[in-house]
Amino acid sequence: MNYDSHSIAMMEPKTRARFINSLSGFKSANLIGTCDLDGNENLAIVSSAFHLGATPPLMGMIIRPSSVERHTLENILATKCYTINSVTHEFLASAHQTSARYGKQESEFEKANLTPYYISEFNAPFVMESPLKLAMNLVEHQTLAINGTELLIGEIQHVLISDTAVMPDGYVDIEALDILTISGLDSYHITQRVGRLSYAKPDQKLHPLTKEGEPSSWDAFGLSDFDR
Amino acid sequence: MNYDSHSIAMMEPKTRARFINSLSGFKSANLIGTCDLDGNENLAIVSSAFHLGATPPLMGMIIRPSSVERHTLENILATKCYTINSVTHEFLASAHQTSARYGKQESEFEKANLTPYYISEFNAPFVMESPLKLAMNLVEHQTLAINGTELLIGEIQHVLISDTAVMPDGYVDIEALDILTISGLDSYHITQRVGRLSYAKPDQKLHPLTKEGEPSSWDAFGLSDFDR
Repeated sequence: MNYDSHSIAMMEPKTRARFINSLSGFKSANLIGTCDLDGNENLAIVSSAFHLGATPPLMGMIIRPSSVERHTLENILATKCYTINSVTHEFLASAHQTSARYGKQESEFEKANLTPYYISEFNAPFVMESPLKLAMNLVEHQTLAINGTELLIGEIQHVLISDTAVMPDGYVDIEALDILTISGLDSYHITQRVGRLSYAKPDQKLHPLTKEGEPSSWDAFGLSDFDR
Repeated sequence: MNYDSHSIAMMEPKTRARFINSLSGFKSANLIGTCDLDGNENLAIVSSAFHLGATPPLMGMIIRPSSVERHTLENILATKCYTINSVTHEFLASAHQTSARYGKQESEFEKANLTPYYISEFNAPFVMESPLKLAMNLVEHQTLAINGTELLIGEIQHVLISDTAVMPDGYVDIEALDILTISGLDSYHITQRVGRLSYAKPDQKLHPLTKEGEPSSWDAFGLSDFDR
């Protein structure tokens, strides 16, 4: 089936939102923790956080100003800091509940039964239940002219994580932490690793790696395609 | 463990790249198909494509100009069009092989044993093996001052997909298409749906949905957290 520009434009708006949101592939599941200048806490689930660079360590995020994430946007612009907390299977429903349109004085932590957690050097609240917590300082903000969404770029200040999830070569086994992935607007998925693959070079065979980054066998992949 | 800015800055560069690339969560797995003005085909795997908006239907993508994706960037800027093709379990190794640094005249389609596919109305090559193919027109391009990466924004022109994967409410079951997700630089994962959840409202209980968007039961989730 070929859906062209015209047939997409003719879709019922909510149907189109569910359809288009599904097309980029699997997305990250994160809770963004913020405070306003009076210390009122806010928490919002986003599937739009993305890697932007390792040196300096940067992450981007897209926020729709008219959405339920508007308090998150206002707080980040006011305080210049926020937290990014990976969502796990265990508190998935709580995380999803933060997407309800609560008032600015209402804390989504309380409404969704999640626990704010602070470290001494940083002013935004983490989600205690999350096994992977990032403290972010806002370093760039722009409104994208094309559709009025807001691009926020933050630099990672702190990474709170169990050492057991960090592999010797730096790779973090987020699957072992039960971190979820999102498809579309509302579908949550756990994952199962097929494998890691070696750095690709022209005229050289790939080889599989264990999650620790050690050479492994193709058996785990179970595909004829791989033994080349 | 708390990794702060200083300890991140002191990491060995490849270790830091693997570490920071893991922190945003699960990422999409896509092959970007392009041609140069002479018709030489190029194909590159990216994990940086992200949803930007449904009306108009927009997708963003980050490219590092010094990376192996530089031919992709050059071709998109020259021709203003590209394809985004979801990567499945079946051709995972072929997709990963496209990240090798081939010469500009060499086609990654050929090197990775993937099949270029064209439709009459569009000039960039799709990957025939992919079950979800998008034709994109470049609508915005900027260099992000903060780290010199390139942000490309495209508008979806065509979506080629089997109708059986499109649910009645518009949601696309990308899991049923065996589409993969990526963590870090080189780890590939299949998924298993926990479930979809209803639109969240204040003071109203969430309810689970089938993948078709119909009311379902909490049993599938198997978590006490959900029955609230």
